[in-house]
Amino acid sequence: MSAAQEARLAMRAGSWTGPTGGRVPGFIQANLVVLPQAEAYDFLVYCQRNPKACPVIEITDPGDPEPRRSAPGADLRSDLPRYRIFRAGVHEQDVTDITHLWSSDSVGFLLGSSLSFDAALARAGVESGGDAWIFSTDIDTSPAGGFRGPVFATMRLMRPAEAIIATQLTSRFVYTHGAPIHIGDPRDIGADIANPVYGEPLERIPEGRTAVFWACGVTPQRAAQEAKPQLMITHAPGHGFVTELNMDQFCLP
Amino acid sequence: MSAAQEARLAMRAGSWTGPTGGRVPGFIQANLVVLPQAEAYDFLVYCQRNPKACPVIEITDPGDPEPRRSAPGADLRSDLPRYRIFRAGVHEQDVTDITHLWSSDSVGFLLGSSLSFDAALARAGVESGGDAWIFSTDIDTSPAGGFRGPVFATMRLMRPAEAIIATQLTSRFVYTHGAPIHIGDPRDIGADIANPVYGEPLERIPEGRTAVFWACGVTPQRAAQEAKPQLMITHAPGHGFVTELNMDQFCLP
Repeated sequence: MSAAQEARLAMRAGSWTGPTGGRVPGFIQANLVVLPQAEAYDFLVYCQRNPKACPVIEITDPGDPEPRRSAPGADLRSDLPRYRIFRAGVHEQDVTDITHLWSSDSVGFLLGSSLSFDAALARAGVESGGDAWIFSTDIDTSPAGGFRGPVFATMRLMRPAEAIIATQLTSRFVYTHGAPIHIGDPRDIGADIANPVYGEPLERIPEGRTAVFWACGVTPQRAAQEAKPQLMITHAPGHGFVTELNMDQFCLP
Repeated sequence: MSAAQEARLAMRAGSWTGPTGGRVPGFIQANLVVLPQAEAYDFLVYCQRNPKACPVIEITDPGDPEPRRSAPGADLRSDLPRYRIFRAGVHEQDVTDITHLWSSDSVGFLLGSSLSFDAALARAGVESGGDAWIFSTDIDTSPAGGFRGPVFATMRLMRPAEAIIATQLTSRFVYTHGAPIHIGDPRDIGADIANPVYGEPLERIPEGRTAVFWACGVTPQRAAQEAKPQLMITHAPGHGFVTELNMDQFCLP
């Protein structure tokens, strides 16, 4: 049994309800978005138009909770540690199982998460990759149907030599956000370091460090809130789906 | 005016009705598939599940003939040199304009074509890249709805050193089929060199040459024929859509 499968079974049994970041290294972790079939086409077109923010790893057939390509035998209704439920775009509650909410109409989207590339950065000696902030930016995504909104980005503070290695490395991982969208002054992309969406506010970028930004999985989540689908279920932040996909194999199409 | 726009205007005026392969180098060329909106979701899922054969460059909004992201101002109804019309999966005829067939229901898919990477290979000194055969293989695509069928592949015969350069180079061009799907014995993937879909039959692979295979745009075209949509319009083989996209910029997401 793979470490990924062990992790998923612990989640299914309810004994793992905590975050997945930094756990089960080497396996791609994915963000989950579950939508009614009627919203699925527009969301998929949105993902195609914004591939750095929304890299699609798998789309399940309507009603089928098994992600057959990325984790055969897994069940999207129970195999994540924590889910977030939205009704008409409003966050209602977090739960650890969504079996009661799944219908013949449900389509699951798994989108590659940057939770998975921290292990690759660490392996390449990029130590500063671990601490990440999340910011909204003034870059607009390309809309599709009701799905629209700004690009959200993770920021990591690195030594310049590390920023180069990280760019080389992540360019190859197109299913987990790919290359950075920006390197340098956060203001160039409208990121206000005093007001992160996630992480501690900063007064300035520390001496000797360069800010490196990657498009982030908050982007499709917020865009989906804009579209106000009747019911939308996502992973809870930091609580991803652990696939069977090997990070180093499933990186370029 | 770019060379790509000049080419499209000549096609629109009807003065360019011939092939596009090897012409207008540096601009990405795309395969076209036009489907009724009702078929578009399944086809898009099919493309996501088979990204090497079906790299999606752009999806137009229903009824909108302008590919706003890849060639602003262009018109998919007139700006290709030659189209192929299929009804219920059967090839009916080839035409040079499809304005009369376009409706408020039409969705255009532009898929990256290997017509565009020959220029990159030539620039890298891979001289043997120019001659290509097309074969069916015994590799199945991952189906979606009614869309299904084998992977079709282009074959190029190269010196081993060229095969390595070509693999490095095309790995980066994920929107035009990416890295090879196979290098070496054609029989490993069920390709019968005596029976190409396109190109002259071969008795053997010449001494000193290695066969290199890339997934090919015939794949989605044949899969769409399987689905038997009421009306499907594609580019005619070798007669692609010339986008404004710079091959060296629009290569990784």
